[in-house]
Amino acid sequence: MEVSFKAISPSEFFYKNRDIAGFSSPARSLYMSIRELVENSLDAAEVGKILPEIYVELSEEDPERGVYRLKVVDNGIGVPGDRIPGAFATVLYGSKYGFRQSRGTFGLGGTMAILYGQITTNKPAKVASSTDGKHMYVYELMIDVVENKPRVISSERRPSPNGWRGTAVEFSLEADYTGSRAKILDYFKHTAVVNPHATLTFVDSRGRLYHYPRTVEQVPEPPRETLPHPVGVDVEMMTRLVAETKAKNLSTFLKTSFQKIGDKTAKEVLEQAGLQPGLNPKKLSHEQVTALVNAFKAYGKFRPPDPTPLSPVGKEFLEAGIRKIFNPDFLYVAVREPSSYSGHPFIVEAAVAYGGSIQLSETPNLYRFANKIPLLYDERADVAWKVVAERIDWSNYGVPKPAPLAVFTSICSTKIPYKTVGKEAVADRPEIERELTMALRECGRNLKLYLSRIEKREAAAKRLSLYAKYLPMIAEFSAKAAGVKTPEVKPVLKKLGIPLKELEKALVKEAGENPE
Amino acid sequence: MEVSFKAISPSEFFYKNRDIAGFSSPARSLYMSIRELVENSLDAAEVGKILPEIYVELSEEDPERGVYRLKVVDNGIGVPGDRIPGAFATVLYGSKYGFRQSRGTFGLGGTMAILYGQITTNKPAKVASSTDGKHMYVYELMIDVVENKPRVISSERRPSPNGWRGTAVEFSLEADYTGSRAKILDYFKHTAVVNPHATLTFVDSRGRLYHYPRTVEQVPEPPRETLPHPVGVDVEMMTRLVAETKAKNLSTFLKTSFQKIGDKTAKEVLEQAGLQPGLNPKKLSHEQVTALVNAFKAYGKFRPPDPTPLSPVGKEFLEAGIRKIFNPDFLYVAVREPSSYSGHPFIVEAAVAYGGSIQLSETPNLYRFANKIPLLYDERADVAWKVVAERIDWSNYGVPKPAPLAVFTSICSTKIPYKTVGKEAVADRPEIERELTMALRECGRNLKLYLSRIEKREAAAKRLSLYAKYLPMIAEFSAKAAGVKTPEVKPVLKKLGIPLKELEKALVKEAGENPE
Repeated sequence: MEVSFKAISPSEFFYKNRDIAGFSSPARSLYMSIRELVENSLDAAEVGKILPEIYVELSEEDPERGVYRLKVVDNGIGVPGDRIPGAFATVLYGSKYGFRQSRGTFGLGGTMAILYGQITTNKPAKVASSTDGKHMYVYELMIDVVENKPRVISSERRPSPNGWRGTAVEFSLEADYTGSRAKILDYFKHTAVVNPHATLTFVDSRGRLYHYPRTVEQVPEPPRETLPHPVGVDVEMMTRLVAETKAKNLSTFLKTSFQKIGDKTAKEVLEQAGLQPGLNPKKLSHEQVTALVNAFKAYGKFRPPDPTPLSPVGKEFLEAGIRKIFNPDFLYVAVREPSSYSGHPFIVEAAVAYGGSIQLSETPNLYRFANKIPLLYDERADVAWKVVAERIDWSNYGVPKPAPLAVFTSICSTKIPYKTVGKEAVADRPEIERELTMALRECGRNLKLYLSRIEKREAAAKRLSLYAKYLPMIAEFSAKAAGVKTPEVKPVLKKLGIPLKELEKALVKEAGENPE
Repeated sequence: MEVSFKAISPSEFFYKNRDIAGFSSPARSLYMSIRELVENSLDAAEVGKILPEIYVELSEEDPERGVYRLKVVDNGIGVPGDRIPGAFATVLYGSKYGFRQSRGTFGLGGTMAILYGQITTNKPAKVASSTDGKHMYVYELMIDVVENKPRVISSERRPSPNGWRGTAVEFSLEADYTGSRAKILDYFKHTAVVNPHATLTFVDSRGRLYHYPRTVEQVPEPPRETLPHPVGVDVEMMTRLVAETKAKNLSTFLKTSFQKIGDKTAKEVLEQAGLQPGLNPKKLSHEQVTALVNAFKAYGKFRPPDPTPLSPVGKEFLEAGIRKIFNPDFLYVAVREPSSYSGHPFIVEAAVAYGGSIQLSETPNLYRFANKIPLLYDERADVAWKVVAERIDWSNYGVPKPAPLAVFTSICSTKIPYKTVGKEAVADRPEIERELTMALRECGRNLKLYLSRIEKREAAAKRLSLYAKYLPMIAEFSAKAAGVKTPEVKPVLKKLGIPLKELEKALVKEAGENPE
């Protein structure tokens, strides 16, 4: 029995398994293509402290075969000319492999969209970019899937029109806009909510314009890179840090390569590892590296990771966004203190909204965000769903079934632990699950107060409307029985606190209704 | 603003994003390691028409640090000595990239387990393999993550003990057996159900032995490789097939490189593409390749893909397995005709079981299988969950809530469209969703008949027990009122079809109960 063995390139891997990157149907692939490119654009603006302006245009190219043309133009920092082929036509090539919060994380999304376009239409993608607003580079690119290398069809350097700086990507793809329209529009709407500093414009293939102008004129502080936190470090990373360091001794190495390690901590950790502070890190043996990692794990006294590189949505933005979309009767936003999992800092924000234009539903309507992008697919696989639909019993907070209840969760981190390459579901790391639960319980307690106030008010109103309804009748009946003139009940009702309006309403209602 | 660009290797990609391969926690990583290796072993036996014997041993190595040692030994066809480093220490290197049904699909799982072990313990993995039962090769391997290359720590050629042929993998890893034990035991139990020809043995770190001897002595016909079906072919694949073919003209190329294309079909397709049958395939232009692919898509008259390379579980095996585990009161297995999605053939088998030791539950207990492996995580993200819990309303089939209802779904295909690299959830391709729905509706209809029979029988029994209860009293009362001797009612009841036993039961029950 002969079996052949063979290595395949990352391009080939994703070409053969595009379901795992979210490119499973023409509908979802269109959605994925748009979101991957929009997220790259948002990152490219934010990293340069630029207010993002992103223009997305979808047009039909061959209606019979379901082929569309997609164009995404931004005003970000641009990609240097010589880097364009690599960045857009090589899988696992990107600018985003630091310890920094960003929307893209895999160095995959934009290229995956272009790869999908190529295999469904056999046409090159067009990428134009300018980093200086003076000149731009324009490429026609295809991907050599077997070799995972760009194939440059044409390239050109031209003056940039009107001083434009940014990146424009345009390509053809097999797509189903009818099947993905609702998700795509939701995507733009929700992206605008958590990125109020961005202006988003989408012109669809039916010629409709969806425009979300920015509501905030200030760019959020761009997320910064940080040093790794010791708790997240494994032997692989330790080996690399040792290879890269310029420190001459272990003590300095620890203090300059990690966050949250000072003199005292360095001393204690090295003692625990049985290593001399004066040792040259480059000379550590395999066993010594292991001992150092184990000491990190066992130490247990590191301060939590530095959350300052994180850029959460912010309470007021979340609140304003939710009000704008749902105009709810009740809204509460909880923002948790920074926390960490495996050495990665993260912050959970959550909100609960009730009433307004929120649809009645048996389980809460869930809106998820991660690093300021909305997650719209695979809800059931997400840790937030687990918490919202399975861990929290909303009836404990007085929520009826069905209820007009919407729950919002937002996680930001230097590393979101996505379950899928398509970045749709967050894994249930216990630390994240706990923070989500705490945040939503806080929201729940406040919702309960609101609902019980509502209930009390309603009960009181009901009682008063009963008085309003029957007191005049009783008065009339008693007066007739006693043979006297019917007294005026309005002053009595007023004394009871029933406004006359209420009384009239009750009487009108009575007249219009069948008696029970 | 300077941004640096960089390519990373597939190893590095999966090292940084192990959540997407299912290695997210010490508990789940242990489960993943076991299943990836066991599945490789099953494939390695099946491809050689060998009855699989797989031995798995888990032992504690360093309880304080949660480090375990995992060993998996099989009797498969083995891996040639020179291929061992590549197969076990290179990501995206494997033997499984044909059009063939297999458990492993990504060329990733085994290496991923070893990589996880390495980054959590910094120890090499040990791999031994013999292809001939005479000699074996023994390697100690580590993975160079940056380069995605094996680092051979030691290697040796030795006589194979007792003529053993197969593969043995052994490595250390950080794990949580307490947290994963239930899933791991379920995994072995369910794997045994759908692989009745395999003998599985698991010795856990508590010294317990779990042994599943084979119940069938016949190896299923190993899945065969097939030619691609024209409907699944995109331009990328077409370009490769053109490059590989030995055919001198297009007509021969179509007939020899694809299934389901004969003279007539070839002629019609080429006409549609506007290409001469005599053209040399190697000389096709870029546009002509596109035209050919488009003609394939538009043709619409291809016969469905050949299902003979598929190896489904089989009705009797599924039935026997389910009876063994749940001993249900009712069981129905539906096997659908072969179908296809994007050119890949697939077969859906489904079963519904009711009663027995199945737990009462509001939603059905779902057991999912794909290419004869159980899928135990991420149930909610699976197409089967969508069908079972959201599309089908079980109350239409007379199922109460809660009910002791278990649903089994099995899909086999030359390509399972997994959503995640961890192979836990199948994407909702419409064709698969439809077949699952049809299969479960068939099961549902049969369940309904059973439940309504049960209901009728219960209603009849209730009616009879009413007679049995009241007739004697009525007889006694009437007799007393008329002043005659109480007549014997037993013959009357017998005539009504009430067994005396039933009568006595009713009377006893009556005596023991409080009157309503």
